[in-house]
Amino acid sequence: MSKLEKRTQPLKAVALKQVSIQDAFWSSREKNVIETVVPYQWQALNDEIPGAEPSHTIENFRLAAGEAEGDYYGMVFQDSDLGKWLETVGFVLCRRRDPQLEQIADEVIDLLERAQQPDGYLNTYYTVKEPGKRWSNLRDNHELYCAGHLMEAAVAYFEATGKRKFLDIMSRYADYIGTVFGGEPGQKRGYDGHPEVELALVKLYQATGERKYLELSQFFVEERGQQPHFFDLEAAERNERPPAGRKNKKREYDYFQAHLPVREQTTAEGHAVRAVYLYSAMADLAVEGGDTALLEACRKLWNDVVRTKMYVTGGIGSSEYEERFTVPFDLPNDRAYTETCAAIGLMFWAQRMLQIEKRREYADVMELALYNGVLSGISLDGKSYFYVNPLEVWPSTANFRHDMSTVKVTRQPWFGCACCPPNIARLIASLGQYIYSANPAERELYVHLYIGSKLELDIEGQAVQVTQQSNYPWNGEVSLDVKVPQPAEFTIAVRIPGWCNGASVSVNGQHVDVADQEGGYVKIRRTWETGDRVELSLDMPVELVRAHPNVRENAGKVALQRGPVVFCLEEEDNGANLQDIVLPEGAKFDVHFDEHKFGGVSILTGSGLRSEVPAEDKHRLYATHGWSKVPAPITAIPYFAWSNRTPGEMTVWIRSNG
Amino acid sequence: MSKLEKRTQPLKAVALKQVSIQDAFWSSREKNVIETVVPYQWQALNDEIPGAEPSHTIENFRLAAGEAEGDYYGMVFQDSDLGKWLETVGFVLCRRRDPQLEQIADEVIDLLERAQQPDGYLNTYYTVKEPGKRWSNLRDNHELYCAGHLMEAAVAYFEATGKRKFLDIMSRYADYIGTVFGGEPGQKRGYDGHPEVELALVKLYQATGERKYLELSQFFVEERGQQPHFFDLEAAERNERPPAGRKNKKREYDYFQAHLPVREQTTAEGHAVRAVYLYSAMADLAVEGGDTALLEACRKLWNDVVRTKMYVTGGIGSSEYEERFTVPFDLPNDRAYTETCAAIGLMFWAQRMLQIEKRREYADVMELALYNGVLSGISLDGKSYFYVNPLEVWPSTANFRHDMSTVKVTRQPWFGCACCPPNIARLIASLGQYIYSANPAERELYVHLYIGSKLELDIEGQAVQVTQQSNYPWNGEVSLDVKVPQPAEFTIAVRIPGWCNGASVSVNGQHVDVADQEGGYVKIRRTWETGDRVELSLDMPVELVRAHPNVRENAGKVALQRGPVVFCLEEEDNGANLQDIVLPEGAKFDVHFDEHKFGGVSILTGSGLRSEVPAEDKHRLYATHGWSKVPAPITAIPYFAWSNRTPGEMTVWIRSNG
Repeated sequence: MSKLEKRTQPLKAVALKQVSIQDAFWSSREKNVIETVVPYQWQALNDEIPGAEPSHTIENFRLAAGEAEGDYYGMVFQDSDLGKWLETVGFVLCRRRDPQLEQIADEVIDLLERAQQPDGYLNTYYTVKEPGKRWSNLRDNHELYCAGHLMEAAVAYFEATGKRKFLDIMSRYADYIGTVFGGEPGQKRGYDGHPEVELALVKLYQATGERKYLELSQFFVEERGQQPHFFDLEAAERNERPPAGRKNKKREYDYFQAHLPVREQTTAEGHAVRAVYLYSAMADLAVEGGDTALLEACRKLWNDVVRTKMYVTGGIGSSEYEERFTVPFDLPNDRAYTETCAAIGLMFWAQRMLQIEKRREYADVMELALYNGVLSGISLDGKSYFYVNPLEVWPSTANFRHDMSTVKVTRQPWFGCACCPPNIARLIASLGQYIYSANPAERELYVHLYIGSKLELDIEGQAVQVTQQSNYPWNGEVSLDVKVPQPAEFTIAVRIPGWCNGASVSVNGQHVDVADQEGGYVKIRRTWETGDRVELSLDMPVELVRAHPNVRENAGKVALQRGPVVFCLEEEDNGANLQDIVLPEGAKFDVHFDEHKFGGVSILTGSGLRSEVPAEDKHRLYATHGWSKVPAPITAIPYFAWSNRTPGEMTVWIRSNG
Repeated sequence: MSKLEKRTQPLKAVALKQVSIQDAFWSSREKNVIETVVPYQWQALNDEIPGAEPSHTIENFRLAAGEAEGDYYGMVFQDSDLGKWLETVGFVLCRRRDPQLEQIADEVIDLLERAQQPDGYLNTYYTVKEPGKRWSNLRDNHELYCAGHLMEAAVAYFEATGKRKFLDIMSRYADYIGTVFGGEPGQKRGYDGHPEVELALVKLYQATGERKYLELSQFFVEERGQQPHFFDLEAAERNERPPAGRKNKKREYDYFQAHLPVREQTTAEGHAVRAVYLYSAMADLAVEGGDTALLEACRKLWNDVVRTKMYVTGGIGSSEYEERFTVPFDLPNDRAYTETCAAIGLMFWAQRMLQIEKRREYADVMELALYNGVLSGISLDGKSYFYVNPLEVWPSTANFRHDMSTVKVTRQPWFGCACCPPNIARLIASLGQYIYSANPAERELYVHLYIGSKLELDIEGQAVQVTQQSNYPWNGEVSLDVKVPQPAEFTIAVRIPGWCNGASVSVNGQHVDVADQEGGYVKIRRTWETGDRVELSLDMPVELVRAHPNVRENAGKVALQRGPVVFCLEEEDNGANLQDIVLPEGAKFDVHFDEHKFGGVSILTGSGLRSEVPAEDKHRLYATHGWSKVPAPITAIPYFAWSNRTPGEMTVWIRSNG
């Protein structure tokens, strides 16, 4: 493996503990996660939500610990729910210690310890339901996936509290896993059907310094897709016949991203969440190992996704069947699957790519997914969730047609497969770590996202404090105030978003040349003193976005975007039959901020045209003449805010004559 | 029941035996059915097609007759395949007796007789596989449906040959059915899940004069949807629990058109083929009984279909799931189900409505379905078939996406559920009976379809002969030559199609006032002499058809239609990415007849615009600018002819700036 080139000296995301968010847009959402979602999820894990499907997660751990009697209940990956919750708790405690929450967490960590088997194994499904069958079906049963989520949680909890117990539990488990899997005789050359443990092991390595975890992650990633195929070998051991109807093996493996060795994969295939979790681990390993070949594989996969398979909202995975990527440019709006978790996973991956390559494209995608495809997954009150995030909804059809049965018109309180709600909670609780990166060796601070926050960073022994203020995403005025104990030379690199065609940057009122960019970042190197202020002004006109002509669903249509926010039309504002609306050539939109709507959002208003059907044609399904057009006012709201009022139609893409 | 008003004195379709088709367009297709399809199907029924799925149909009858050993094989409605084949044979023999074919048919009719049980029952599934379980699952098992197809066959065979044996077999079966079903104590107040026997019993009544068959048909139709619900009662007798996941009973029943008594049904619901078979029987009963209330129910259902649920091709049934109607204006092009059988059934229904009400709308729809949604179901060589007839196909997506798994890019040689191929064969073989209607009491002859043919008709004792010639559907010049033994006064009513905005009609060169229409027909009453000639000239410009704005899939799009033929674009002529093509305002098309293409069809050529993506945007999935447009020649071929060359994209609806 050749080392990464010098010029791509990696950044390091500034850790959550060093960033506290103080932001008009995000603080309330963060507060909501801390005060509502975390307690609610804890109740859910304990089956204390009246009327909700039981989760049984905690009870499964009690069963595994021999402290309760009964049967295992829930999905085979039920343990991961506790992992995501504990990770969220870790993130919350990074922000502010909370003895009461910490006590609950400590107690459940004690339970985890008691549920752990003497050899380190920790999985309630196999311990309770199929003892003796461990590692017999890696393809389907999420055993390492669950381990991964618990590892991520252990790392977050350790970083927040400094307490080692959970980290030790998961290290013991990882040590045990390391005895089972590997290239030595008697070890399994296997990997999980759902990637997750790979990225978790990298975190475990980073938290513990134990290189063996990094090596185990690398093993899992490199084994994937090798021949003879592990999934065949283990299926044969189970005496399992190939499932009927699955004739194309390649198509079967690609669901798991196991159709080829990862270094040979050039297109994003299969289950979208699995894919981006795997690609995230690949990016981690590329940087940790200085592995340019692996980085090149990541780049190819990245390009395939963002150039051919990503919705304008940052959503990915256009097929409900297998929750998967399909073929290039197949991006149907009304049958978009675009799972919330997939958009979150895209952020994970983008953030990792961004540390390797200082290219704003990664931050652009991360930001796009965050403000659109991720955020649409949660209601404004934080109590209901979309698993599927369509870009066009026609309730009469979506509620009727079987091929749209996963498209919901309103967010649901929880899900049988409850992956998205806890995933969005942990994303919001850890948002602080997506904002900044640092390169201590080069004395560089990168600002990727414009989210009001206070950053405390050690730059070569100096405790640098940066206070970011903005009303993002509603306007592009951003300030960064520097506080240093004594003057210090370092670079602040600010991102000029890809969507922005008019930006200005100043330091203490002095203009900086924004044309002088590196990868989309304006780099300001100077000796900073307390009181220095960087100001950005990012023009945010309403843009009419068009898709590549190969995206046939969007032919002749535009999406409205302003800054990072994609807008949509809802029936409540625009009446029914949104697809009849057409924007005239040169359509313009006014923007106004409405503090009363959706907790305060910008609203776009403009004028379009609608068909007028004369009385004599009322009953004609087909006519040989056109319909006359009448002006129609148009109101667009942020896409993430849709479905918070009366259920009705919604569309992101609008027909355009322009 | 009130009588049909005097003014709607019904017509009677001129029987097949009186019409022989001699037509540039249809004769080759008829010949193909006679010479290729009928023998092929016979081989298929006898499991003699190498490599094809066994049909086992004839073998099932042998088993039922006790003349073979083994198990029943095939769908529960396998008997209907023989019914459709024998009906086709009957139609073929109407055209021209064929001793060899007749011998085969007579032998299989003998087999049917031997398979018939002593009490008249005749169904191989229950006789062989579930003896003693007759009539235990009307909802699902197609018992009366199979009976119906055999009855239709018996009538056709009788009409062609005058031989009564088959008719007698089926009359005995019908007599027996009449003992099982009815309102008397001990009888079942039931009906079949798949309507068919109802329209067949009307035919049996018409052939035999036995009113009890009409009454039995009426019983089945009137019982449908009554409470307590028959499907519940019989399910309870089977100790059957409601299937899981079917929570909405109304939704469950409407699949069978049994959610309401038929007279209360106002919207077309459920399985499209079942629906139109039922509606056909309702129309039959309305006319036979002079039942205006039932006619009114038919009218409402008709309006619901043609005003909200019919594709521009005459295809119906927009959902693959349950092969059903969905909600008004839900007409997706790429996931159209539009089963060939449903378009055929729509013709059945339209033809019946046309006899009751002399309104060209019924003939328009009949013709539209015939030249488009029906004919697309069969390849030009008659050897492969579409079950599903989409209006837009993108092979890469259709072959990949699970929600499009029923959309085939190429016609298939046969089907596991082989309902469409024999249905289209019997339709083509019986096309003669759709062309003319007569009203002997009023001395009227109606000409509905312009298909070259020779008609022999008795009008008040006079043997009238009419020879129709045309190059329809490629041009609108039609002539009708009259031959009478002596001068006779009667009316020839010629249809001015709804798509035609410029028609002229003349008799012996003398213009007739075409504005003087009754229901879209120009009625010419005169004393006809041999040598009299009626000439029609129907303008056939290329029309740009637009859908009602409520059809969101077609917003901003046009379909090309010329005369009754709907056109489409194929990739082979127009390159890939057809959805990128946009027609400029005022787009015009040239028409030329190409005798070498698709057996001779008209081709449309014109000019559209395509996007040009500059090199620097090649990899941009989204852009904030529009794409420049370059002219692109466009070639459109008849929709029915698509998929007879290299598999590729196809679209009926084309974007339009006009």
